[in-house]
Amino acid sequence: MAKVGIVATLSIQAGKEAEFETVFNDLRSQVLANEAGCEMYDVYKSKADASTYVIMERYADDAALKAHGETDYFKAAGAKFGALLAGAPKLEVLDGVSIG
Amino acid sequence: MAKVGIVATLSIQAGKEAEFETVFNDLRSQVLANEAGCEMYDVYKSKADASTYVIMERYADDAALKAHGETDYFKAAGAKFGALLAGAPKLEVLDGVSIG
Repeated sequence: MAKVGIVATLSIQAGKEAEFETVFNDLRSQVLANEAGCEMYDVYKSKADASTYVIMERYADDAALKAHGETDYFKAAGAKFGALLAGAPKLEVLDGVSIG
Repeated sequence: MAKVGIVATLSIQAGKEAEFETVFNDLRSQVLANEAGCEMYDVYKSKADASTYVIMERYADDAALKAHGETDYFKAAGAKFGALLAGAPKLEVLDGVSIG
């Protein structure tokens, strides 16, 4: 079963970056504590644009990704992100080729 | 010192995907064998487009990324990729916020 990768690109409203990082880090700690199938949930900030964040995610399989999206804490964080985003997130869903 | 992330998106000419994977995997094995500062060099294939590959990379710091780009094997692979790419690669250079 191929690993599943996600690259999520989020544009945050100017001045709301710190708040985004707080909400994201809270979500991240819950993901890493509760989801054995989530192998990576790392957030980066673009060097080119301080309001753009990129999240690199890796899941053991499609089922792990599906379970992630159905958690209460993920849905709750999504609601908070709504007030911080400057536009719709861009999601790239990927099949692992050479991983780890 | 913040970790450095790279998301590289490569469009490969139709029919040359297998050749790309061979060249990339050869490069990857040299990177992982020779570069302690390269902490991740994983390649994925887009679920939406079978000719698009996404490489998720992580480096200990800027110096490790710089050293990576200066290796002979990276330059040699770059020359081979030139004949396989359908366009210029897209590179996102990122500062780590919450990693590992």
